[in-house]
Amino acid sequence: MKKLINDAADVVADALRGIEAAHGDRVRVDHDHHIVYRADAPVQGKVGLVSGGGSGHEPMHGGFVGPGMLDAACAGEVFTSPVPEQMQVATEGVDGGAGVLHIVKNYTGDIMNFEMAAELAAESDIRVETIVTDDDVAVTDSLYTAGRRGVGVTVLLEKIVGAAAEERRDLDAVLEVAKKVNGQGRSMGLALTSCTVPAAGKPTFELGEDEFELGIGIHGEPGRERRKLGPASELAQQLAEPILADLDFTGDAIALLNGMGGTPLLELYVMYGEVAKILEKSGVRVVRNLVGNYITSLEMAGCSLTLLKADDEIVKLWDAPVNTPGLRWGC
Amino acid sequence: MKKLINDAADVVADALRGIEAAHGDRVRVDHDHHIVYRADAPVQGKVGLVSGGGSGHEPMHGGFVGPGMLDAACAGEVFTSPVPEQMQVATEGVDGGAGVLHIVKNYTGDIMNFEMAAELAAESDIRVETIVTDDDVAVTDSLYTAGRRGVGVTVLLEKIVGAAAEERRDLDAVLEVAKKVNGQGRSMGLALTSCTVPAAGKPTFELGEDEFELGIGIHGEPGRERRKLGPASELAQQLAEPILADLDFTGDAIALLNGMGGTPLLELYVMYGEVAKILEKSGVRVVRNLVGNYITSLEMAGCSLTLLKADDEIVKLWDAPVNTPGLRWGC
Repeated sequence: MKKLINDAADVVADALRGIEAAHGDRVRVDHDHHIVYRADAPVQGKVGLVSGGGSGHEPMHGGFVGPGMLDAACAGEVFTSPVPEQMQVATEGVDGGAGVLHIVKNYTGDIMNFEMAAELAAESDIRVETIVTDDDVAVTDSLYTAGRRGVGVTVLLEKIVGAAAEERRDLDAVLEVAKKVNGQGRSMGLALTSCTVPAAGKPTFELGEDEFELGIGIHGEPGRERRKLGPASELAQQLAEPILADLDFTGDAIALLNGMGGTPLLELYVMYGEVAKILEKSGVRVVRNLVGNYITSLEMAGCSLTLLKADDEIVKLWDAPVNTPGLRWGC
Repeated sequence: MKKLINDAADVVADALRGIEAAHGDRVRVDHDHHIVYRADAPVQGKVGLVSGGGSGHEPMHGGFVGPGMLDAACAGEVFTSPVPEQMQVATEGVDGGAGVLHIVKNYTGDIMNFEMAAELAAESDIRVETIVTDDDVAVTDSLYTAGRRGVGVTVLLEKIVGAAAEERRDLDAVLEVAKKVNGQGRSMGLALTSCTVPAAGKPTFELGEDEFELGIGIHGEPGRERRKLGPASELAQQLAEPILADLDFTGDAIALLNGMGGTPLLELYVMYGEVAKILEKSGVRVVRNLVGNYITSLEMAGCSLTLLKADDEIVKLWDAPVNTPGLRWGC
């Protein structure tokens, strides 16, 4: 295992120190609880947005904390859910009197722990609602999940719902936007290589020199099947088809072509070019897009495609200013 | 070789199609000459900024084209200089009557070809000046270079000089800012793994399981020496010390902790935390920073550190709005 780390046991704590050192102008870090807060949290009168999950998916979620996006992100150990206490502390820390929305990717550990945190917060008279993202069309049920996994749409949702909260919409209205985004988003990923969890010290799985895993999960959990690696044009088809088959995306859409962490941007652009051709032929008009590493799996080589049906409201919220380490415009 | 590409011979052309598909709102692409232009180039009365170099370093340079940064970027084949004709066409394409600055990383091929392009442009009565970046303290002279190599400072320079040109400073004044930035910037990199040039099909070099290359070049060319891989705290010291020994950075600075393409952001933050401690102890006050993949070497694992001495003028130009695929704020 070759990594830029100190002790494998300290990797999350050390990275949080780096996030604070780099972005202390926008975020502050609770090192006892491994929480990244928006610097000015709690914002009075604004719905607080709390997300979190296992580390190793950076910039998600800590890199999406700041004005126009999350109020707090709870960092678990690598690929491991944060504990309920973290989420409870974060919920109390961001409550500005308008309630708190938990944004949870559909993984069994995260669901359970965020539920416990919501119950604990209710005892402090904080109203908490929860949106569970489950956009991955690759598999229903998996090693870590009952139902579909929550992946790329989480990034788009945190941006769009962040803008809705910034407008001072109330908790019901913010939850409604969140449900709409999750309902209109679908994702599919593939991996060319495994990744190595620092504490494990060896690759999570092995893939042959001519194989890729279609429908990979963001923790390296199995997807639909292993296939023989073909050209980017075929890979793009294998990502796009299951998404387009699952929901009618004819019309406007936001597209995220996401790198898993170890794939060069050069290759992501090759893939985006192929995806764009397929979408155009399918009547999907991409009105906004992101190409890059947004929800990663450590140094895994591969990518995922996320599509989100867009209407005027979604595009307007997308275009609103955001100022986070991982996503920034208009500020 | 496992890559998200079609034919290895087409990787640059295919990636440029992806860049156009993704960022057509901000850039346009000349597919015959492999040039990425700012959508509204030439901007009348503004000094035109042209950079370029081998591909495989994305987002540099094509991802830095747009308002507040470059007017055009010429893409060579992977790790290969663009040809003079590309640079000549780009120079003519961005000339808005105020002359053109060529921003060239110090590699022998780039220097030679940009010089020829400048001579050709002079025949069309376009005044061209050139800044050659040479910030890498690792080695003097190398496989591809006479003198120090141009690396991370190029990113910072393109941003800062881009802002100066946007203010409509004249060519002499823009060149002066460029010289100042290059003179005040220093870099040092390290690699944990090699990368694979698509046309070669096999890794550029090999490193033992417990080794890293200190002072690596961005094409995988050798650095100072191979050392045994230690903890991030030691690696940060090995990057920072040669930089601090080369120039007095006491006072304000802009820091870039750059990923080489295959290193997870989690690890870059671990490294940034260590670098920040060293800089603080050394009397360097980091007033602005970037942490992420900005000047990459395909899927190489590793990172580089760039420091730039900052004064009020540099910080003001840094903070000015920029709207490119790779760097965006204030827009």
